Amino acid sequence: MTQPIKALVFDVYGTLFDVHSVKVKAEELYPEHGEAISQAWRQKQLEYSFLRQLNGQYVPFSQVTRDALRYALLQLKLHVTEENIADLMEVYLKLDHYPEVDDVLQQMGDKQIAVFSNGSHDMLDPLIEQSGLAGWFDQIISVDDIKQYKPTPASYMHALNTLGLKREDVLFMSSNGWDITGAKSFGFRTAWINRSGLPVEELNLDPDSIYDDLTGLLEWK
Amino acid sequence: MTQPIKALVFDVYGTLFDVHSVKVKAEELYPEHGEAISQAWRQKQLEYSFLRQLNGQYVPFSQVTRDALRYALLQLKLHVTEENIADLMEVYLKLDHYPEVDDVLQQMGDKQIAVFSNGSHDMLDPLIEQSGLAGWFDQIISVDDIKQYKPTPASYMHALNTLGLKREDVLFMSSNGWDITGAKSFGFRTAWINRSGLPVEELNLDPDSIYDDLTGLLEWK
Repeated sequence: MTQPIKALVFDVYGTLFDVHSVKVKAEELYPEHGEAISQAWRQKQLEYSFLRQLNGQYVPFSQVTRDALRYALLQLKLHVTEENIADLMEVYLKLDHYPEVDDVLQQMGDKQIAVFSNGSHDMLDPLIEQSGLAGWFDQIISVDDIKQYKPTPASYMHALNTLGLKREDVLFMSSNGWDITGAKSFGFRTAWINRSGLPVEELNLDPDSIYDDLTGLLEWK
Repeated sequence: MTQPIKALVFDVYGTLFDVHSVKVKAEELYPEHGEAISQAWRQKQLEYSFLRQLNGQYVPFSQVTRDALRYALLQLKLHVTEENIADLMEVYLKLDHYPEVDDVLQQMGDKQIAVFSNGSHDMLDPLIEQSGLAGWFDQIISVDDIKQYKPTPASYMHALNTLGLKREDVLFMSSNGWDITGAKSFGFRTAWINRSGLPVEELNLDPDSIYDDLTGLLEWK
């Protein structure tokens, strides 16, 4: 730790909230397929956000998430109904947050704290509101304001502009390797929350810190 | 079929050549892990090409492929040696082409025929040379010339400029859904070679034709 940081910026999906908490409802609707639906849905959601950024066909993340769910169900050869899609999309507004989140945020309370997500406000705001965490955040920043998905440099610049700080003042946390390498490439300081015990991405953009969960952040207090 | 086409442009990896022919060598080096290595390697190779395009950190596809292989081996908790990486990278220069390729190209001989790939020439040229297919191609077009990966519009524009045609004169073939949607978004006519029986991508960019393998192209003669 060299210079002290002025802001903690958290990714949302996978970092503060467990995207795989959709498994319970998925298993209820499609017995014995809950796990597979959850994995395929998340993977396709990420792929579609990347592809729409690359081919210049941006739509909000709520649409990307819905499209990815439909694809995942079709790929698994499951029966797709509009009702099931609506039910699963509803769960995305009520994902569980990880158990350590409250405690860590409480102890970091004197720094500027924000979330920065590919999620559009129509999914991000209700999720954070129902979680009871909303009071901790000074800003809820969405790429949808500029329609440039992470990990483009333009997306991280939008977060920086919203914060009104310098790049090196910001510690960015994500459990997603692609997000950490994007933020590092842009110039943020980065802490990778490696919840799944994965290898560091082979992109020559190693994180400044690696923690198993968010409690590791307490050393930045 | 409305207007006749003037050029057939083929993607390479997965479309003309079977990327999963690396399984044999992978299985030899890492018994019982051949299939898993092949799948993880390909998935990470695609992800890294997308991420490097998105974060503006382009390196040639040969480097992306090598980095992805290293990650895949680490992810599977296998022992990584430089010799094994070199051996597997060598196989990438000798991938099998699909059995119908020779026959289909032979029957299409009077149209302009090209390949257009994310592969850099250091991997693309030796692969095509050893396959015995080189004589069929008027152009071997690589995104490495402009350092813009598919599926960016700039990449397909590079192919079009090289061909010297109009968008609607080109029929583009790929087995990769992300590549077909990118080409369609750009304005090429598209034939998806759906070798794995996957659903159409939920990106509102449906292919003009869908075939199980390349023999379906014979109706464009």
